[in-house]
Amino acid sequence: MTKITSILVSVAALSLAACQSSSPEQKEDAVAATSDPLILAAREQFEPLPDGPAKIAGVKSTPEIIALGTALYFDPRLSASHSQSCAGCHNMGLGGADARPTSLGHRWQHGSRNAPTVLNAAYNMAQFWDGRAKDLAEQAGGPITNPVEMAMAADQVVPTLKSIPGYAGMFTSAFPGDQDPIRMENVQAAIAAYEATLVTPNAPFDRFLKGDGKALNETQRRGLQAFMDNGCSACHNGVNMGGSMYAKFGAVSAPSADLLPPDDLGRFAITKDDADSYSFKVPTLRNIALTAPYFHTGKVWSLDEAVTVMAKSQLGEALAPQDVSDIVAFLQALTGDQPKTVIPALPPVDGSSKQPLD
Amino acid sequence: MTKITSILVSVAALSLAACQSSSPEQKEDAVAATSDPLILAAREQFEPLPDGPAKIAGVKSTPEIIALGTALYFDPRLSASHSQSCAGCHNMGLGGADARPTSLGHRWQHGSRNAPTVLNAAYNMAQFWDGRAKDLAEQAGGPITNPVEMAMAADQVVPTLKSIPGYAGMFTSAFPGDQDPIRMENVQAAIAAYEATLVTPNAPFDRFLKGDGKALNETQRRGLQAFMDNGCSACHNGVNMGGSMYAKFGAVSAPSADLLPPDDLGRFAITKDDADSYSFKVPTLRNIALTAPYFHTGKVWSLDEAVTVMAKSQLGEALAPQDVSDIVAFLQALTGDQPKTVIPALPPVDGSSKQPLD
Repeated sequence: MTKITSILVSVAALSLAACQSSSPEQKEDAVAATSDPLILAAREQFEPLPDGPAKIAGVKSTPEIIALGTALYFDPRLSASHSQSCAGCHNMGLGGADARPTSLGHRWQHGSRNAPTVLNAAYNMAQFWDGRAKDLAEQAGGPITNPVEMAMAADQVVPTLKSIPGYAGMFTSAFPGDQDPIRMENVQAAIAAYEATLVTPNAPFDRFLKGDGKALNETQRRGLQAFMDNGCSACHNGVNMGGSMYAKFGAVSAPSADLLPPDDLGRFAITKDDADSYSFKVPTLRNIALTAPYFHTGKVWSLDEAVTVMAKSQLGEALAPQDVSDIVAFLQALTGDQPKTVIPALPPVDGSSKQPLD
Repeated sequence: MTKITSILVSVAALSLAACQSSSPEQKEDAVAATSDPLILAAREQFEPLPDGPAKIAGVKSTPEIIALGTALYFDPRLSASHSQSCAGCHNMGLGGADARPTSLGHRWQHGSRNAPTVLNAAYNMAQFWDGRAKDLAEQAGGPITNPVEMAMAADQVVPTLKSIPGYAGMFTSAFPGDQDPIRMENVQAAIAAYEATLVTPNAPFDRFLKGDGKALNETQRRGLQAFMDNGCSACHNGVNMGGSMYAKFGAVSAPSADLLPPDDLGRFAITKDDADSYSFKVPTLRNIALTAPYFHTGKVWSLDEAVTVMAKSQLGEALAPQDVSDIVAFLQALTGDQPKTVIPALPPVDGSSKQPLD
């Protein structure tokens, strides 16, 4: 337990930082008095997901911006082929991710890393596995023009949207002071505003943290205890059960090369700092039971195996089968209420609209 | 007008057939008394779309069947790559179709014909451009295993669904008397039951038919008159403004080869009857302003051009520009209330579930 204790000190600091980033109103009703020692221990490291859209510093959100962002998120005409939208790989029906090791992009190209969930992504400190986008708005610009993903030419996004008559009114409503509102910056801001609504409160573990000790069953309670005792919560903590730090995959013991291919150096590619080799953003564990396959390679399909691999590679521990199954039961208590998005009616093209390639 | 009159006789018969196929309850409140001669004339050939799901003879529909069908419709794991669902090419955000000349299937293969809208498809006499499926349930089995579309191996659909734990309960709830409910027949029946809910009532033209003469503006009223006078309604009539007969593309004058490629013989491929060469099911015109590009090749992007081509090829007429723009204005009055589908939360895979190919 000693090595864990020292880790937990830094966890507390990280949790505090996470608390400060959410608004006071969002947290007010979170905590009911309890004498349940497991709830009290858990509250030291985790916090319930607030209801309602995440509030992001500097991101303006109005019903008109969210409506525009929803349309853009679902609009395949943001891709070169007009067949791929954000929603294809970040599917609300599949826990905000897709059902493949890596996604299929333009001309059936395979992505290089597993699609992370969009759900609760607003609570991550940065976006992408390597954190190369500082926030959702910056992230939203990436896949649209990535030649392996939606493959839109950078200079065609705005002309394409301008060529679809109905978008002019939607952008003007969303950004009323803007003389030329159909701009990439506004595209990204609107998508981010919609994505900030994609939160999944009310998981059993949220109800537990708020004071309902029976929201976890006995197996899940043992799993939570094992999750904390073994040090999983050293990285997966705070409001998003992850997303608040980077960690080297294989910190204690390198996993096999199919899980950690030598040519993907993770965050090193961004920072060029040797200390960041094979380092990735710790993913959220919220809704993890919905988002197989796992890890940045998407090569592991079962939570049992994922937990076993993590314990060995990150903590140097060979968990007992009972601990693994208890922890998996706990992870299943992290599935919250899924967003109820009505598919938006998109503005139609006319004869002068830009047409798809390929 | 003489040649039109004879066409209209057969139209009346077709309209009557369409009336008889919908139930009495659905039609009861459709008609309010009016002295507007244009409404009275229109009622001879068209009828308003009923509110509520289409009722299909022999198709059972319960909330549980519709919930299952909705999940299946949106589930990309019905495709070999686990990345393509029915909803990809029949997108509720794009008028129930997609935004391309022809859709992209497995490994980026191009489909051979433009994806028809799923909206109001229950009111078509048959499905696919060539009518090769007699109803929605039969149609639903096609794309899933078509190697150019979703490309699932025929013997893998059911095992894949059985390998996703949450589907067992959903199929049992939907088909409670069935000892082995996860069967292809039930998959197709459930998708059809969901698709029967995808109707778009309350278009301006529906309100007009029900007695509100002001639901069409003056341009649209002229367009409706031109639509009837020129004989467009000889084929596009009844409750679905089409979908009730086959017609040879180029009945009077063959269009250019890019619109009518010589290697696609249409319904002839099904019937082997020379009279059916280049014959296709007359598509619905409902929501036509949402579903560019047009024709079975998807080569025409503007309604003006589509109307001009149709008048020439089917009626041998060179319409005046004013008639074309009036008719297009009328066609825009065929856009109804779009379905409000909440993306369903799909049952997740586990470690023993079937995995995607490619």
